[in-house]
Amino acid sequence: MQKHKFPERVYIREVGPRDGLQNESTFIPTKDKIEWIDQLSLSGLNYIEVTSFVNSEWIPALSDADIIAKHIKISPEVTYAALVPNMRGLSRFLEGQIDEVSVFISASETHNKKNINKTITETKAVLSEVVRESITNKKTVRGYISTVFGCPYEGNIEIDKVIRLSDSLFEMGIEELSLGDTIGIANPLQVTLLLETLLKRYPTSNLAMHFHNTRGTAMANVLASLDMGITKFDSSLGGLGGCPYAPGASGNLATDDLNYMLTSMGIQTNIDSYKLNSAAQFIQEKLNRPLDSHAVKYGMTR
Amino acid sequence: MQKHKFPERVYIREVGPRDGLQNESTFIPTKDKIEWIDQLSLSGLNYIEVTSFVNSEWIPALSDADIIAKHIKISPEVTYAALVPNMRGLSRFLEGQIDEVSVFISASETHNKKNINKTITETKAVLSEVVRESITNKKTVRGYISTVFGCPYEGNIEIDKVIRLSDSLFEMGIEELSLGDTIGIANPLQVTLLLETLLKRYPTSNLAMHFHNTRGTAMANVLASLDMGITKFDSSLGGLGGCPYAPGASGNLATDDLNYMLTSMGIQTNIDSYKLNSAAQFIQEKLNRPLDSHAVKYGMTR
Repeated sequence: MQKHKFPERVYIREVGPRDGLQNESTFIPTKDKIEWIDQLSLSGLNYIEVTSFVNSEWIPALSDADIIAKHIKISPEVTYAALVPNMRGLSRFLEGQIDEVSVFISASETHNKKNINKTITETKAVLSEVVRESITNKKTVRGYISTVFGCPYEGNIEIDKVIRLSDSLFEMGIEELSLGDTIGIANPLQVTLLLETLLKRYPTSNLAMHFHNTRGTAMANVLASLDMGITKFDSSLGGLGGCPYAPGASGNLATDDLNYMLTSMGIQTNIDSYKLNSAAQFIQEKLNRPLDSHAVKYGMTR
Repeated sequence: MQKHKFPERVYIREVGPRDGLQNESTFIPTKDKIEWIDQLSLSGLNYIEVTSFVNSEWIPALSDADIIAKHIKISPEVTYAALVPNMRGLSRFLEGQIDEVSVFISASETHNKKNINKTITETKAVLSEVVRESITNKKTVRGYISTVFGCPYEGNIEIDKVIRLSDSLFEMGIEELSLGDTIGIANPLQVTLLLETLLKRYPTSNLAMHFHNTRGTAMANVLASLDMGITKFDSSLGGLGGCPYAPGASGNLATDDLNYMLTSMGIQTNIDSYKLNSAAQFIQEKLNRPLDSHAVKYGMTR
């Protein structure tokens, strides 16, 4: 029998405009994206990943990154982030008004190759330069490691691999590390074991968890993480998203469902669930398909 | 930071043929129901709630209870159960080949009234006779308490109410108590708090948890329960079901998703996931609508 001590405050990193929309076949017109992000900025969310500066040919859904980065309404309460894969992306990033650079690497060699067409070693060299240049330009950097709990091509991923990559990213100068369950294959025991190891090296404040709900286990994985003291979670409003290079990887953990569970447990998120729900309704209408989150399906606003 | 010790073996109580099908608008032909239950019997599940002996006018979907109870193929590995609301139901039950009687009461006066048209006190009197007569006929009895974590009409339910009802049911002679989150409103903290209280009175072996996934929290609630030592969970293959008298209560926790999470955590369930998946495909075809479970949606068989 366990006594739990959950955190009092949790910070949700909204990744819907990037991780969510990048997987949608419908191109959301730029002005609608901006309007949606502006709604999110007013919902109490204090972190929004708004776009990605990858080559537009790779992810046409986010080909308007430059305009987004210049025209969203900046709220002083919110940290805005965007994905930056390389130096060319960084120079585009720096022309906008985004606060934080997100860099990406996979724990699986095969997934990394399929995702960004580079080996892990090649990717590290690129990211190292991107992180250094970002810091020189007074931008903070967040690192993502994907396929941390399993890879569609390589299967199981050893904890040691994740540790070594985490060390590399922190050595480069990232401030926060997001551990991605890209294909939604993690289970709570695995989450606990990984965090037990990682938390010997880094404080909880440096780590965020990024779960997908492909197999219905995301919320249980959140609970396991909360139990280890984790206070930062990536999620996507309405459950938008996935990973275009990982088969069957659809279904980010839904921000609205996560916010429901956290607040019902008495954990503060500072999010106005009515505003959140109305932003979900907005993007659902633009996408013209029903969103996956339970909150949207059952019309809940709490 | 917590150290977890999860159970080595978990027992899944499959409630799809009863709690699932009772909410479907499509009447599944009796021979298909029997074939489906026979498939479930061969999947490794060791407990199946196969039907309900309520008045057929109330739940037309299960109006063939008498035939089901006589014609399913009985496996010696499986305990078969059926819902029995009153003495008339019990005499029908006793003509079949079912092992265990399930009796039902709600923790909420209003929900109980809407569900079975009796006050809690009146229901207790009826159940008391049903349990006594069942035991006389050498049948074991399982008690359900519904709306344990919240009621669509009365809102919050006090733990004391649940404790008093649990005591009454155990005094009557039930062997196992299933605690139902009928409207899927429970959160893991609430689950932990209730179990902390209940486990001071009863051992884990007497308790089962019955979660619905209405708000996406069922699997996290399972994890919280496992952490308290609970080893019995009700679920419904493919996520079939809900409660016809509780608005927005659709969505039983899906057996296939639950089985995935448990086995991936190294917890034994003794279920053959391929056979489980093929039974899910069978009933999905008969219902002619996509099932809700992640396992079915993503075509997983593990």
